[in-house]
Amino acid sequence: MNRIIDGKKIAQRLKDTLKIEIENIKEKFKLVPGLAVIQVGNVAASSVYVKAKTKAAKEVGIRVFDYHLEDNISQKELLDLINKLNNNSDVDGILVQLPLPKSFNEQEVLDSISSTKDADGFHPINVGKLSISPKNDENLLIPCTPYGCLLMLRELNIDLVGKNAVVIGRSNIVGKPMAQLLLKESCTVTIVHSKTVNIKNICRNADILVAAIGKPEFVNQDWVKEGAIVIDVGINRVQLNEDNYKLVGDVLYDEVEKRASAISPVPGGVGPMTIACLLRNTTISCKTKLSVNRK
Amino acid sequence: MNRIIDGKKIAQRLKDTLKIEIENIKEKFKLVPGLAVIQVGNVAASSVYVKAKTKAAKEVGIRVFDYHLEDNISQKELLDLINKLNNNSDVDGILVQLPLPKSFNEQEVLDSISSTKDADGFHPINVGKLSISPKNDENLLIPCTPYGCLLMLRELNIDLVGKNAVVIGRSNIVGKPMAQLLLKESCTVTIVHSKTVNIKNICRNADILVAAIGKPEFVNQDWVKEGAIVIDVGINRVQLNEDNYKLVGDVLYDEVEKRASAISPVPGGVGPMTIACLLRNTTISCKTKLSVNRK
Repeated sequence: MNRIIDGKKIAQRLKDTLKIEIENIKEKFKLVPGLAVIQVGNVAASSVYVKAKTKAAKEVGIRVFDYHLEDNISQKELLDLINKLNNNSDVDGILVQLPLPKSFNEQEVLDSISSTKDADGFHPINVGKLSISPKNDENLLIPCTPYGCLLMLRELNIDLVGKNAVVIGRSNIVGKPMAQLLLKESCTVTIVHSKTVNIKNICRNADILVAAIGKPEFVNQDWVKEGAIVIDVGINRVQLNEDNYKLVGDVLYDEVEKRASAISPVPGGVGPMTIACLLRNTTISCKTKLSVNRK
Repeated sequence: MNRIIDGKKIAQRLKDTLKIEIENIKEKFKLVPGLAVIQVGNVAASSVYVKAKTKAAKEVGIRVFDYHLEDNISQKELLDLINKLNNNSDVDGILVQLPLPKSFNEQEVLDSISSTKDADGFHPINVGKLSISPKNDENLLIPCTPYGCLLMLRELNIDLVGKNAVVIGRSNIVGKPMAQLLLKESCTVTIVHSKTVNIKNICRNADILVAAIGKPEFVNQDWVKEGAIVIDVGINRVQLNEDNYKLVGDVLYDEVEKRASAISPVPGGVGPMTIACLLRNTTISCKTKLSVNRK
């Protein structure tokens, strides 16, 4: 009775919708949404993500402004670039691929992105709005990964109200915004983390379990209630030999899929959803700009 | 072995500290923090709160700018007043007593208060910062009631790390920021609410139970684990007869105090803490203004 949540397919459907929206924008306003993608340095995983995001953006008709910077540029140079992009009306979304090299003040960089061009939804004002705003505010810029998880849950066509949801991990990027989104859906929400006592027992009570810990295959069948829905946010590279690695999630898939009523795989689960939601945020920013201009 | 958490005493200690800080500011900069208090209409409970806040502010040396407006003023008139106060350098904190009459767009009013003068900590940017920022950022403007609850918990001198904390209620004013604060303290945090299934059982597992529902004496002994710490945020008026009412919390005190290891009473618990934290926010805003001016 178990169901694999096909992130690739759901993401493709979202991208198809965005593509049509963007064509309409192009026809009506003679412009397309623009996304600036900034990568600093050459971390291999970051390069993979940036490439995938750039490719997907182009597929739906978003114009990509590509900035690949040396890792010896200064904080100020990066802030100056962002400031320039904030003032460039062709740019609707600005994405700084994380993590930045250790010499950077990451939060200052994220805060410097205009809240209206905040493709990742990490700006404090957007974080605040996510917490405050009522459900289904279509103009919010919401962090891409947790919003992608929510879209996957919605795809299951079950009533989320009153479900016992447990989020493993309390990062600003996934855990905390995920909890906010589930709370808006009227789930009962628990956030567990490295300091939690009896974490396994708490997870085993979850109707919905979202794993965002960053530890390969950490969540095994003992953590999962029979029939639970499991969303695996982890994307961990496990080195096979010098040249090869495989991607695994935070969930021990082969075990857990036998207990779960629905589960998202890695790869092909949350990853594609994150990218599609990035494109969605860029399109939202563009539409907001156009509606402001028309006023 | 049970301990009554004396909010009045803890609040007084905080006010004493603020009074000294404000005297130092006065001596050094020849000015005092200013708090604008705006009340619209004549709801009796609001008048009581405004009076208490004004009195407490004056006690610690804060200058109060008092605006008591008719309930037939327009949204625009209220926004114009706030805009004027945003630009008045003598005003460090702006408080709009809630609830506003139904004709007002409350969120728009709150959003219009400068985030640097946000005495209540309800502005989206401050809500976002509360979620993002590391523990013990002393410059944050944090919603007064949940911060007051946290100060009461800290007073118990117990290790909060890993404690199982349950917050009843998911309001923007109390429940959500309370959850953020407890998460920062490394508690395992669950938010339960009106849609939660088996709410009593979840609460009965809590080491720390914060009740913010707004239902008089709703939480009885069956909801509370032996030895739990109970913080009662409710301030409910129960009419005794035509002329008299009594204040009760969300917790059935006489029952629950027998099971709890520590409990905050109503009145004399969270109420005075909320007011002291309002004065703290006003003082923080003033200090931030002074440090910016010096730069």
